[in-house]
Amino acid sequence: MGFHVFSYIDLMGTFVFALSGALAAINRQLDLFGVFVIAFVTACGGGVVRDLCIGAVPPAGLVNIEYAVAVALAVTIAGCFQQVLLKLTQPTLFFDAVGLGFFAAFGAHKAYSYVPDIQLAILLGVVSAVGGGAIRDVMLSRVPVVLTKEIYALAALLGAAIQVMGELGWIGPHMAPWLAIALCTLVRMLSLRYGWNLPGLKKAA
Amino acid sequence: MGFHVFSYIDLMGTFVFALSGALAAINRQLDLFGVFVIAFVTACGGGVVRDLCIGAVPPAGLVNIEYAVAVALAVTIAGCFQQVLLKLTQPTLFFDAVGLGFFAAFGAHKAYSYVPDIQLAILLGVVSAVGGGAIRDVMLSRVPVVLTKEIYALAALLGAAIQVMGELGWIGPHMAPWLAIALCTLVRMLSLRYGWNLPGLKKAA
Amino acid sequence: MGFHVFSYIDLMGTFVFALSGALAAINRQLDLFGVFVIAFVTACGGGVVRDLCIGAVPPAGLVNIEYAVAVALAVTIAGCFQQVLLKLTQPTLFFDAVGLGFFAAFGAHKAYSYVPDIQLAILLGVVSAVGGGAIRDVMLSRVPVVLTKEIYALAALLGAAIQVMGELGWIGPHMAPWLAIALCTLVRMLSLRYGWNLPGLKKAA
Repeated sequence: MGFHVFSYIDLMGTFVFALSGALAAINRQLDLFGVFVIAFVTACGGGVVRDLCIGAVPPAGLVNIEYAVAVALAVTIAGCFQQVLLKLTQPTLFFDAVGLGFFAAFGAHKAYSYVPDIQLAILLGVVSAVGGGAIRDVMLSRVPVVLTKEIYALAALLGAAIQVMGELGWIGPHMAPWLAIALCTLVRMLSLRYGWNLPGLKKAA
Repeated sequence: MGFHVFSYIDLMGTFVFALSGALAAINRQLDLFGVFVIAFVTACGGGVVRDLCIGAVPPAGLVNIEYAVAVALAVTIAGCFQQVLLKLTQPTLFFDAVGLGFFAAFGAHKAYSYVPDIQLAILLGVVSAVGGGAIRDVMLSRVPVVLTKEIYALAALLGAAIQVMGELGWIGPHMAPWLAIALCTLVRMLSLRYGWNLPGLKKAA
Repeated sequence: MGFHVFSYIDLMGTFVFALSGALAAINRQLDLFGVFVIAFVTACGGGVVRDLCIGAVPPAGLVNIEYAVAVALAVTIAGCFQQVLLKLTQPTLFFDAVGLGFFAAFGAHKAYSYVPDIQLAILLGVVSAVGGGAIRDVMLSRVPVVLTKEIYALAALLGAAIQVMGELGWIGPHMAPWLAIALCTLVRMLSLRYGWNLPGLKKAA
């Protein structure tokens, strides 16, 4: 499906997700081990859950040294340059959006190639993209940000759905991942730019 | 085992569990995506854990569109009628108790049919019934209610144990699920009616 | 690999881990069911995650009655002797350190025997040893202690690494688990004695 040419995006996504996890963990004053664990979980947790759900054991995130290296690099950089990084919000948010799109598309692709079920592929695409961040938040004892505000999961859902259209042949399979990543990134960046949020459902009592 | 005639109870249990999850999520001011996720996790989370533990991948809760539809319906109704629903505690508690019994019996049945081990079947019956609510609570950053008060898990344990007796042929296999659901519901409703609680173990210092 | 002679250490580790879980749960005023669940999760949770990741289903912790009995015993003793136990910190910490070493070594051994991958074996050895306590903390709605202070995971990492050296034949396979347990225990006890901590990464703003 052309995903081998995407492996640098995969590692970049892993790195950016790990960076966001590391910064959150540092901010909560975890020790070096804790920072590494939270960075790793943020980057690889969604993929591990996906792999368990499709029976792809051992999960890819646990056996490929590239991921561990990307996470270690992210922890090092987060430790050394935390004050700079906390100011570089725009680039970080952009790379995070690209990583989101990649993980959604790749997750949907991998799930569909194991179990050709549309619903499962979309669902696990979203889990691949937002699951790691949700586990990070639960481990840091707070309600996952993805559940409370901003267009984040919805952008991942869009990316996963476009990728599944590619798997089904509705759109060119070679174009699908590019389109998925581009549109996911676009929606995410536009939502940040214009402050889009999903509505809540709570009514005044 | 006659479980196909039970599929409407399964969907009803899913719906009621999703409703309770959706109301909790709305109350915590999650956005629409968050409410759907928490409702889905509450309804399907226990079954997903059960399926992972017996190697039944992909987990049934992730591939059957009925569950997603039941959850979407529950979210819609919770969003539209939250104030009414919060007053209808008695019917909600009754349907929740029936769902508890169904999930405990069906979970024990499915586990036993994959791995004929008594301990595992009872344990995963209970996990099927109470696991989703526990994951919901952890995701909402609070200690699972099921661990702190009321006779809830114990009713599920009773239901799972009766179902396993049916699997073993100690009681009629066609009668076992009905009996399991009935007794689980009865114990749960009586415990609510009379305020039964399991004892704590904490002593005054 | 000589692990059958280790089965009493396994049960002792399970018992000590369950004891620490039970005491934490009692302290949080959970009911009897809650105390049992938290004790069980503390003792068996890491191993269950390891088994799911290597496809060893059903997880050993869920089907062997010995574990459930060890947990039930720990809950009983914790319930009866909580005040005494809270004073016996030195012996408890020692047995916990031995259990940590055993779980790290056995976890790495089991992972390696299913999937001969060095990184995975070390990682899942650590998960076996510290995962249960981390899940306990998340369920009790607090950041896992293992992520925030003390040399605990690092001692487990050492134990897992030594065991993997045994799997690879770098050191005698019969000696490896003993050495792993001894060194893990030693490092853990020394770190407690001298107050060693891993550094944090947070800089003053």
